[in-house]
Amino acid sequence: MDTISMMGNSPLNAKETFLPSLEKNGLKEASGRPCVAVIGSGDFSRCLALRLLRCGYRVAVGSRQPKRAADRFPHVVDVTNQEEAAGRAGVVVLAVRREHYASLWGLRHLLAGKVLVDVSNNGRMNQYPESNAEHLASLFPDSRVVKAFNVISAWAMQSAPMDASRQVYVCGNSVEARQQVMELARQLNFVPVDMGTLCSAREIENMPLHLFTPWKGPVLVAVGLSILFFVYSFVRDIVHPYVRNQQSDFYKIPVEIVNKTLPVVSITLLALVYLAGLLAAAHQLHYGTKYRRFPRWLEDWLQCRKQFGLLSFFFAGVHVLYSLCLPLRRSERYLVLNTAFQQVRADVESSWNEEEVWRVEMYLSFGIMSLGLLSLLAVTSIPSVNSALNWREFSFIQSTLGYIALLIGTFHTLLFGWKRALQASPTASTCRPALRWRWCCR
Amino acid sequence: MDTISMMGNSPLNAKETFLPSLEKNGLKEASGRPCVAVIGSGDFSRCLALRLLRCGYRVAVGSRQPKRAADRFPHVVDVTNQEEAAGRAGVVVLAVRREHYASLWGLRHLLAGKVLVDVSNNGRMNQYPESNAEHLASLFPDSRVVKAFNVISAWAMQSAPMDASRQVYVCGNSVEARQQVMELARQLNFVPVDMGTLCSAREIENMPLHLFTPWKGPVLVAVGLSILFFVYSFVRDIVHPYVRNQQSDFYKIPVEIVNKTLPVVSITLLALVYLAGLLAAAHQLHYGTKYRRFPRWLEDWLQCRKQFGLLSFFFAGVHVLYSLCLPLRRSERYLVLNTAFQQVRADVESSWNEEEVWRVEMYLSFGIMSLGLLSLLAVTSIPSVNSALNWREFSFIQSTLGYIALLIGTFHTLLFGWKRALQASPTASTCRPALRWRWCCR
Amino acid sequence: MDTISMMGNSPLNAKETFLPSLEKNGLKEASGRPCVAVIGSGDFSRCLALRLLRCGYRVAVGSRQPKRAADRFPHVVDVTNQEEAAGRAGVVVLAVRREHYASLWGLRHLLAGKVLVDVSNNGRMNQYPESNAEHLASLFPDSRVVKAFNVISAWAMQSAPMDASRQVYVCGNSVEARQQVMELARQLNFVPVDMGTLCSAREIENMPLHLFTPWKGPVLVAVGLSILFFVYSFVRDIVHPYVRNQQSDFYKIPVEIVNKTLPVVSITLLALVYLAGLLAAAHQLHYGTKYRRFPRWLEDWLQCRKQFGLLSFFFAGVHVLYSLCLPLRRSERYLVLNTAFQQVRADVESSWNEEEVWRVEMYLSFGIMSLGLLSLLAVTSIPSVNSALNWREFSFIQSTLGYIALLIGTFHTLLFGWKRALQASPTASTCRPALRWRWCCR
Repeated sequence: MDTISMMGNSPLNAKETFLPSLEKNGLKEASGRPCVAVIGSGDFSRCLALRLLRCGYRVAVGSRQPKRAADRFPHVVDVTNQEEAAGRAGVVVLAVRREHYASLWGLRHLLAGKVLVDVSNNGRMNQYPESNAEHLASLFPDSRVVKAFNVISAWAMQSAPMDASRQVYVCGNSVEARQQVMELARQLNFVPVDMGTLCSAREIENMPLHLFTPWKGPVLVAVGLSILFFVYSFVRDIVHPYVRNQQSDFYKIPVEIVNKTLPVVSITLLALVYLAGLLAAAHQLHYGTKYRRFPRWLEDWLQCRKQFGLLSFFFAGVHVLYSLCLPLRRSERYLVLNTAFQQVRADVESSWNEEEVWRVEMYLSFGIMSLGLLSLLAVTSIPSVNSALNWREFSFIQSTLGYIALLIGTFHTLLFGWKRALQASPTASTCRPALRWRWCCR
Repeated sequence: MDTISMMGNSPLNAKETFLPSLEKNGLKEASGRPCVAVIGSGDFSRCLALRLLRCGYRVAVGSRQPKRAADRFPHVVDVTNQEEAAGRAGVVVLAVRREHYASLWGLRHLLAGKVLVDVSNNGRMNQYPESNAEHLASLFPDSRVVKAFNVISAWAMQSAPMDASRQVYVCGNSVEARQQVMELARQLNFVPVDMGTLCSAREIENMPLHLFTPWKGPVLVAVGLSILFFVYSFVRDIVHPYVRNQQSDFYKIPVEIVNKTLPVVSITLLALVYLAGLLAAAHQLHYGTKYRRFPRWLEDWLQCRKQFGLLSFFFAGVHVLYSLCLPLRRSERYLVLNTAFQQVRADVESSWNEEEVWRVEMYLSFGIMSLGLLSLLAVTSIPSVNSALNWREFSFIQSTLGYIALLIGTFHTLLFGWKRALQASPTASTCRPALRWRWCCR
Repeated sequence: MDTISMMGNSPLNAKETFLPSLEKNGLKEASGRPCVAVIGSGDFSRCLALRLLRCGYRVAVGSRQPKRAADRFPHVVDVTNQEEAAGRAGVVVLAVRREHYASLWGLRHLLAGKVLVDVSNNGRMNQYPESNAEHLASLFPDSRVVKAFNVISAWAMQSAPMDASRQVYVCGNSVEARQQVMELARQLNFVPVDMGTLCSAREIENMPLHLFTPWKGPVLVAVGLSILFFVYSFVRDIVHPYVRNQQSDFYKIPVEIVNKTLPVVSITLLALVYLAGLLAAAHQLHYGTKYRRFPRWLEDWLQCRKQFGLLSFFFAGVHVLYSLCLPLRRSERYLVLNTAFQQVRADVESSWNEEEVWRVEMYLSFGIMSLGLLSLLAVTSIPSVNSALNWREFSFIQSTLGYIALLIGTFHTLLFGWKRALQASPTASTCRPALRWRWCCR
C-alpha cells in the first residue's frame, strides 16, 4: 500500500520495478509510508493533507508562518517552513496562487529533479497568456512540473464520499512524473486521466471555470423564443377574445398556452440545427471550396447544434407530457359534460365528423413518430453511446433520421393548423379544434 | 498476433521493441505462438485455456493430477504437472484457491522473475485481512504478481460473445508485468483497466461480490415507505368507505391506490436527499468546523443520496404513467357517462366550476415542471454524462435544480390536497376531487 | 506545444524527458515546431496537413508530382517529392492506398527507424487476408508501424469543431512509437485509445465500415413482424367488417391499427431474447457439455439479444405513447358524446360493468409495471452504466428482471384479450372492449 510505482524501468532488471521511486530517492520514512510535501497552508492544502493522511501517506506542509498554520492541521501533519517541507519528499504539491510562484524561487535547488504538482486555478478563463503550469515550468526548469487536481474542489478533496466526478486530469512533459502523479491520484481514490504534455495545461485550467459554456447560446435562444411565443399566444388566445367578446379564458394560461408555446419552440430549435448545416453548405458552394473557414457566427452555431437538438427534444418531451395531461383536466371534463347536455338538448344522434377524426388521428400519429425519432437522436448524444458509434452510424442517425424527424414534425404541425389555414373567417380563432376540445362544430 | 509487446524499453534501441518479451525469455515456441501457463485444472482454468487457444495462444496447464485432468481439456492443451507448466511460460496464471497458495511454495524457484497472475475471488467481502494478491506477493517475493481477470466469470471467459461488461481490472507493482497482462487481456478481447499498484487488489477482489450494495438501503426505505402508504391509502379510501357506507370501491386498488402511494413515496425520497445535506450542514454549524467527520449513519446517508434521487425519479415516472392512464380506464368512462345522464336529468346547462378548473390546471402544470427538472437530474446521473460535467455544473444541477424540483413538487402536492385542507366536514373524504373524476360537486 | 514526449526513458536522467524525441533525432526545426511528414497528396493528406498546421506543427508533404499537388495546399506547407519529405521528420504519415505501398519500397532506407503511421481504410470488411498495417510492417521491417487516424474522415480531420466521436484508435508493436502517435493525436484534439499490438489493426480497419452491423438482423425481424401484424390487424379489423357489414372504420388505420401492431411486435421481440437463452440451455443439456460451441445461427441469435431487447423496449415505449394518446382523439370524443346521448335516450341511469372495470384496471397496471421493468433493462444497456455493473448485478437485471417483465407483459396481453377468449360468437370482433371505447355493451 506504500509504494508509488514507476514507469520506464529497463526491462531486464525486473526486480527493480518493485522498489518504489520514493524509496530509491532515499525519501521513504522509517514508518514505511511515503511522504508528500505540500507548500502552502490554505484551505486546499488542509483538505489535501487530510485526504493524504487518510490514504496512508505522511504529509509535510511547508508554510511561511508554520506556527500560525500548525493550528489548522491535525497533529500528525508536520507543519514546517517551506525549505524543510520541500526537502522531505520527492513529490511536492504547490498549493499557492500563481502570484506567489516567484516567491518560491529560493527553493529552486531543493526542488530540482523533483515532481512539482501545480494545482492552481484562475479566476477566469485564459486569464494569463500562458498557463500557470507552463509558467511554473519556466520558473523551475530543473523540476518536473505536472498539472493535476485543479478540477477537484477543496470540499471534494476532503470528503471521502464523492458525489461528483472523481476524474483528475493530469498532464506534464515528463512521462515518469506524470505516471507518479497519476498513481498518487489513484491512491487518493480518484480516477486519473492522462492528458499528455504540459501544453494541455491551459485546457485543464479552464475546465473548472466552465458553467455550461456551450449551452449558454442555445438556452438563451430557447428562452427568448419561449417568451416570444408565450406572449403571442397569450395575446391571441386570451386577451383578444376577452377584449372582443368578454370571453374569460384565463384558466388556459397554465396548460393550454404553455402547451402552445412548447411545440413551436421545439420545432424552431430543431430547424435551427439543420439550418446551420444548410448555411454552411451554401457558404461552401458560394466560395467554391470545402476547406475555407466559416465566418465566426456560423462556426459557433455549427458547434452548438447538439445543444439545440437536445433542447428541442426536451421541449418536445414536455409538450408531449402537457398534451397527454389534457384529458386529465377538470375543464375538459366540464366541456364534455356540457357538450353532451347540448347534444341531448338539440337531439343530435351522432356528432361524428369524419374529416376532424382523420385530421386528429393523423396529427397524433405523426407527433408520436417524430418524438420516437427524436428520442433516438437524444440517446445517441449520451457520450458513451456516441463513442460506440462510428462516423457513418453517427451521421446516419443525426443527419438522415434528424431530417426525417423534422419533416414528420412539420406534417404534425401542418395537421394541427389545417382548419385554421383553410378558414378565412375571423371566427376561426374561436373555433379552432384539435386539442382544444371545445364544442364548436354546431 | 504472436507478440506481447513490452513497456519500458530504452528509447535508443528502437528495434528491440519489436521483439516480444516472451521470445527474449526463450519461451517462444517453434510454432511462433506465445505460451501461457495455467496452474490449476478447475472450471475457470478450462474456460481460460479455451479462450487462450481461440485467440492464438499455446496453453500449458499444470495440475496435481495431470492424467485425470487431461480429459477435461482439448487435446491441443498440454496438461502436465505444475512444475513443468510453470517452467514453460513467462506468464503463469494461478487458477487455484487462496488456501492452496502455500502448496505452490515448491515452485518458487520456477516462478522467480515471472509474471504471476492472481485470478482468485473470495466468498465474501474483506474475508481476509490482506487481499489474495498481496498474500501471494508476500509468498513469492521474487515473482511479479498481477491481479486480473477475477471480475470475469468462467462462463464469460469461455463464451466469445460477451453480453456483459468486458472490462478487466488489472493491478500490480511491476509496471512492465502489468502492461504485459493488460496486453494479454486485450488479445483475449477484453478491455483492460489500469488500477495501479497492488494495493488496489482488495478493491478489485471485492468488485464481483457487490450486488447493488449502495442501493440496498435506499431500496429498503422505498419499499418500506411504499407498503406504509399503500396500507394507509387502502384503509382510508377502500376499507373506511366500505365499513361506513357499504360503498364498494375495491376496483380502485390496482390503479388509484397504487397511484396515491407512488407520488408520496417519490416526494419523500426526494426530501430525504436534501434532508441529509441539511443535517450535515447543521452538524457542521453545531461543531463549528468544516472538517469534522460526520457520524456514521449520516455519512452512509450522504453517500446514497444519488440512489435516493434516482429512486425518487423512478417513482415519479411511474406515477406519471399511472396518472396518464387514468382517462383510459373503463371506470372513468362509466362515471362520465353516468354524470352526463345526471346532468341532463337535472337539467343543468353548465357544470363549470372555475376554482376546480384552476386548481387542476395548476396542479398538472407544476407536476410536469417538477418531472422535467427531475429528468435533468436523472440524466446527469448517467456516468458518462456526469464525468463530462465539472464541479460547478454538477452542483448547479444537483443542488439548485434539485431544490427547485422539490419546491415545485411540493406545490404540486399542496394543490392536490387543496380542497381537503380547507374542508373540515367528514364528507370531504368521499368528495375529494382532483384525479378521482367522481361527480361530487352537485 | 512543441514537444512530443516519450515513454520509456530511464528514470535516473529525468532531465532528458523534457527533450522531445524529434529534437533528439535532429529533426526539430529552427522555428522550434516539430515537423510531421505526410506521404500522398489526396483529400485526407490535405485535411491532415491543415489540422497539423493549426495545432502548431510544421508539415512536409511528399508527392509524386509535387508541382501539381502544391496548388492544393496552403503556402506554408512544404510540398516536395517523397524522398525529401520522408527524410525531414521522425513521424511519417502514409496517406496512400494499400495498393501503392509497394511503390514506396525505394524509401526503405529513409524510413528505417522512423514511426510510420498507416491511416488507410478498405472498401469492405476483411478485404485482404492480412490487415493493411501488418502488410506495411512486413514491407518495412525496419520502421515502426503504427495504425491510427483511419476512423477519422477527411472532413472530420479538417473541421476543428467535432460533432462526432473524437476517439482515435491506435495500435502498434513498438510501445514507444504508439505513445508518440497517441501524443500526436492528443495534440490534434483527438482522444487516443490504446489498442495494443499491431494484431488489433484488422479490428481497427473494420471499424469505420460498420453500419449498425449487430442491429441489422434484429431490425429486419422487427420490421418483418410489424408488417405481418399490421396487415393481419388491417384485414381483421378494417377489411373484414367493411366487407361483412359495410362498416367503414378506415379512420382507425393511423392510430388503432398501429397501436395493435406495436405491442404484439414488442412482446414477440422480448420473447425472442429469452427464447435464445432457453434454446442454448436445451442444446447444452442435449449434448451434455457446457463447453460445446453452439450452431452458427444460435450463436448469432445469442449475440444480438441486447438489440432485440432494446427494440422491444422501443416498440413498447411507442405503444405506450399511442395508448396514452387514445383519449386525445376526436373519434373517441364523438363516441363518448354519442354514447351519452344513447344512454339518456334509453334512460339507463348507470352503465357500470364491474368485470369490465376490473379487467381494464388490471390491464393498465400490469402494462405500466412491465414498462417500468423494461426501462430499467434499457438504462443498464447504456455502455457507461453497463460497465459500472459487475456480472452478478448485470445478470440479475437482464435475466431475473427481464423474465419478470416478460411474465407481467404476458398477463397484460392476456387481460387485453380476456373477453375475446371467452366469447365464441362471431359478433365478438365488433364488440371487443378494452381501449376501443366503443359502446358495445348494451
